[in-house]
Amino acid sequence: MPITTPLISLLGIKHPILSAPMDIIAGARLVAAVSDAGGFGILGGGYGEKDWLARETAKLKACTASFGIGFITWSLAKQPEVLDIALDAKPRAIMLSFGDPKPFAPHIKSAGCLLICQVQTEDMAKQALDAGADILIAQGTEAGGHGASRTTLDIVPAIVDLVAGRVPVVAAGGIADGRGLAAMMALGASGVLLGTRFYASVECDGAEDAKRRICKANSGETIRSSIFDFSRRRWWPSPFTGRVLINDHARKWRGREVELIQNLDVVVAEYAVALETGNFDIASVIAGEGVGLIHDVPPAGAIVERIITEAEQIIAGRRNS
Amino acid sequence: MPITTPLISLLGIKHPILSAPMDIIAGARLVAAVSDAGGFGILGGGYGEKDWLARETAKLKACTASFGIGFITWSLAKQPEVLDIALDAKPRAIMLSFGDPKPFAPHIKSAGCLLICQVQTEDMAKQALDAGADILIAQGTEAGGHGASRTTLDIVPAIVDLVAGRVPVVAAGGIADGRGLAAMMALGASGVLLGTRFYASVECDGAEDAKRRICKANSGETIRSSIFDFSRRRWWPSPFTGRVLINDHARKWRGREVELIQNLDVVVAEYAVALETGNFDIASVIAGEGVGLIHDVPPAGAIVERIITEAEQIIAGRRNS
Repeated sequence: MPITTPLISLLGIKHPILSAPMDIIAGARLVAAVSDAGGFGILGGGYGEKDWLARETAKLKACTASFGIGFITWSLAKQPEVLDIALDAKPRAIMLSFGDPKPFAPHIKSAGCLLICQVQTEDMAKQALDAGADILIAQGTEAGGHGASRTTLDIVPAIVDLVAGRVPVVAAGGIADGRGLAAMMALGASGVLLGTRFYASVECDGAEDAKRRICKANSGETIRSSIFDFSRRRWWPSPFTGRVLINDHARKWRGREVELIQNLDVVVAEYAVALETGNFDIASVIAGEGVGLIHDVPPAGAIVERIITEAEQIIAGRRNS
Repeated sequence: MPITTPLISLLGIKHPILSAPMDIIAGARLVAAVSDAGGFGILGGGYGEKDWLARETAKLKACTASFGIGFITWSLAKQPEVLDIALDAKPRAIMLSFGDPKPFAPHIKSAGCLLICQVQTEDMAKQALDAGADILIAQGTEAGGHGASRTTLDIVPAIVDLVAGRVPVVAAGGIADGRGLAAMMALGASGVLLGTRFYASVECDGAEDAKRRICKANSGETIRSSIFDFSRRRWWPSPFTGRVLINDHARKWRGREVELIQNLDVVVAEYAVALETGNFDIASVIAGEGVGLIHDVPPAGAIVERIITEAEQIIAGRRNS
């Protein structure tokens, strides 16, 4: 019994599984692998690095499947011209997260693109609907990288109820297997967005040591804080913080953010060296609470297949227990 | 298609819905209503108030359905003799939360009772299994009242994987409707434990104004902290904190716990008056993140029926969207 949801026809995909636009590491290779497997790969536009975006979108011209490109909204607002690089690649959708999507919505929609907005609260969902969002992603605090405080089990039904069927709702945060997809569909979601699970895939451009650490980490071994933003001099607006694997650096500065800022120059220099040398005892591995469910680094297409097979079995009742 | 799980035969119930042992307010009336409707009502033994327990267990002698009695483990350890009052009432199970169940397990099991242990981490789950727990409750941070920091979506599959089928796992924290039951079953849980949803029921012994506030509160309007424990001079062991509705008192002291302790006598006196007069701007309404899904105060039996009907529809695929 294949899973069908309104999201599938809207995005022109086979399976309601989206890969998150993890900046820099969700490149064309990962996007193509996910989309070719029937999911919906989303390129990591991130903070809007133009050269990277031009290079990766150029590679995507060979991709015949439906794909998307994601941006950090407040960062895009500082250099709105990078949106054109993205639109030139003819994505099926642009995904905007962390900020007011309104200034960009008309341009995106007049280019024939769908607008996907990721939200963390009801107020953000209303703002996105007002802007004309075609799809909402309800993101829980379990998510890796940036997010807010409400949990996935809390925010997903809240957004589903608020939306009341007007647009499909995709669940994000802490989902890494078919159980998670089936559970989110039971809550009324039309699909799921997964980051960390696709980080630990062959095609992800993340460091091999980072992938190994994700496989090794247990559930509960991540932390949501501002430590890793401060350490890179990234000043994110409230209420957004970042979830990463707990490492020596996180243990050292947890609860001492003020002191970190007082020593910012030293910390930033140290962190930059760690990033460059791939020292993940100091540099952060951006990952969500789904780490406990991730134990291998398969091709992204195999991940899509595995999740769908497991979810279909659960929904068909073969694994109810 | 009725929902069947291993939990149902083990507890001798019809529906895999447990009501939480909310101390003092989950009295015999609520327990009987839940159990008579085919769920599993659990009496709130709480901190072990003997007179209350003797009175409520006496009332339960008329209850022919299967029911349980719950205790705060670390509190029970201070007056283990109250366990006998509970066992005299012939419950199907004793539920222990927040502490090592080992000292009590032999006595409970030799009385022919099942042992239900609520856990918040994998280590606690191992401890409970070692003690001979027959059922584990995996409780997420969304839960009202005492709990810890891991989310329901995180901790439920983690405990399901750890248990590997040895005993049924019940999910708790943020669940208040049939969507939640269906979602938790997709994650591998055998049932759900609900507190806040049954607080807002006719038979719950909570104050009417507290029930009204639960109906009125939106999702996201609760806080997990130690404020309400400190304000009652309850010294809970780490890592447990309490989730309550955000009110004037919580807003006043949030992030100022040290200052609260420095002014403890004044705060405790003020809080005691508020409790006695039912002033819930100061006294806490203990409630979980499921508040956003709760809008009415029906009979507890109607809640059980409503949740089961909705979950069965979702599982049967009639509401997949």
